[in-house]
Amino acid sequence: MSENEIFQYSIVSALMDGVASHGTPISRVLTHGDHGLGTFRNMVGEMIVLDGEVYQMKADGTVVHIDDPDVTVTPFATVTRFRPTLRTRAVIEGKAGLAEYLASLFPAARNHFLAVKLDGVFRLKVRTAGGQVEPREGMVSVASRQTVHTFEGVKGTVVGFRCPEYVMGVNVAGDHFHFISEDRQKGGHILELETEGEVDVAAAQMSRFHLELPTEDDEFNEAELKLQAQGIKDVEG
Amino acid sequence: MSENEIFQYSIVSALMDGVASHGTPISRVLTHGDHGLGTFRNMVGEMIVLDGEVYQMKADGTVVHIDDPDVTVTPFATVTRFRPTLRTRAVIEGKAGLAEYLASLFPAARNHFLAVKLDGVFRLKVRTAGGQVEPREGMVSVASRQTVHTFEGVKGTVVGFRCPEYVMGVNVAGDHFHFISEDRQKGGHILELETEGEVDVAAAQMSRFHLELPTEDDEFNEAELKLQAQGIKDVEG
Repeated sequence: MSENEIFQYSIVSALMDGVASHGTPISRVLTHGDHGLGTFRNMVGEMIVLDGEVYQMKADGTVVHIDDPDVTVTPFATVTRFRPTLRTRAVIEGKAGLAEYLASLFPAARNHFLAVKLDGVFRLKVRTAGGQVEPREGMVSVASRQTVHTFEGVKGTVVGFRCPEYVMGVNVAGDHFHFISEDRQKGGHILELETEGEVDVAAAQMSRFHLELPTEDDEFNEAELKLQAQGIKDVEG
Repeated sequence: MSENEIFQYSIVSALMDGVASHGTPISRVLTHGDHGLGTFRNMVGEMIVLDGEVYQMKADGTVVHIDDPDVTVTPFATVTRFRPTLRTRAVIEGKAGLAEYLASLFPAARNHFLAVKLDGVFRLKVRTAGGQVEPREGMVSVASRQTVHTFEGVKGTVVGFRCPEYVMGVNVAGDHFHFISEDRQKGGHILELETEGEVDVAAAQMSRFHLELPTEDDEFNEAELKLQAQGIKDVEG
């Protein structure tokens, strides 16, 4: 895979349906990208991939660096070999403000994918999923027990993607961002954000999408995988 | 791309929205596969890719071999480097019968893609799209003027795919098959089919999907691309 192409393992609809007992080694995902997000086996915590390093951000507020990517697996991840084609600085107010800002940066890209990275000081509300209490527990149910943390004046990095509407179910339509602090001590899936002053913005438009489905995974094979657009918006939007 | 992976250029939702003025050279598509289907600029006719050869099946009933794949472009195509993992023989009654038969051949693959080829003698109803009468004319409108041909006792080949439900909009959920006669004189998009006696069946399960979006294409960039699931079922199902 070349630079600024999306690689994705499994689909969001499978997570919605609770398919999270197995996965692919994180080292395999890293061969396709150095920037991205995802989750871990049984949806324990939020995954962020930043400059090729992978962190697990847990519901208890701790962050673990994944030292054994050959052994640790992910049931869902989206990554790219990120090479920003646009760099600027901006003040951003709210997730809606970020969406509008990205649309203004890439006016002809609403039907394409974007990879985005923000570096600076933020005020944020993030959530971290605590994980399934039983196999096949769906994401809406898992998310009902999510932990929410609020951070102010925290220096760190926002990593994520904007996906076009038509991939809803395969991925999350719209923006999907995770955050990790510069000291790698805290982070999560972003529910709300504002910048404190200007932050560095790096982004790239992407027009190639590569999907790899789980194989020899009975959970995936047996899942219904009906489109649950509203459910995905509720828990991932 | 390896064998039995799907490559797709553009998305069905773009065709629904009439995005068909431009495209990618067919020779580029052929680097990713030797088996598949699609359409041509302005949706003129049905494309079939069989053993690496490309044919345009037109509404007037004629079939043209594409001799200049570097020049002729496609606004939408789906192909694979087809290497059947299963070969058998079967009698098939109706599109529903084919769907049931494929499900029985690959019981654990309902969330995966299938590539399928049938060789034998068929009784078929096919349609061929005559093309847009103006730029951005949507596929439902184009299909309202389609030509329908009925063939009996015709020897030839059925080429196509079964896609999982969750890719509706990106591709066509369910079965999508085109037909070409052995003498390469007639064919089209299959509306109904029955085999006359047993036919050869070749198929493969696919778990990797590669999507390439149009770039520098104003039509694509400006299209709304809302999910029109029922519309797609009506004209492509």
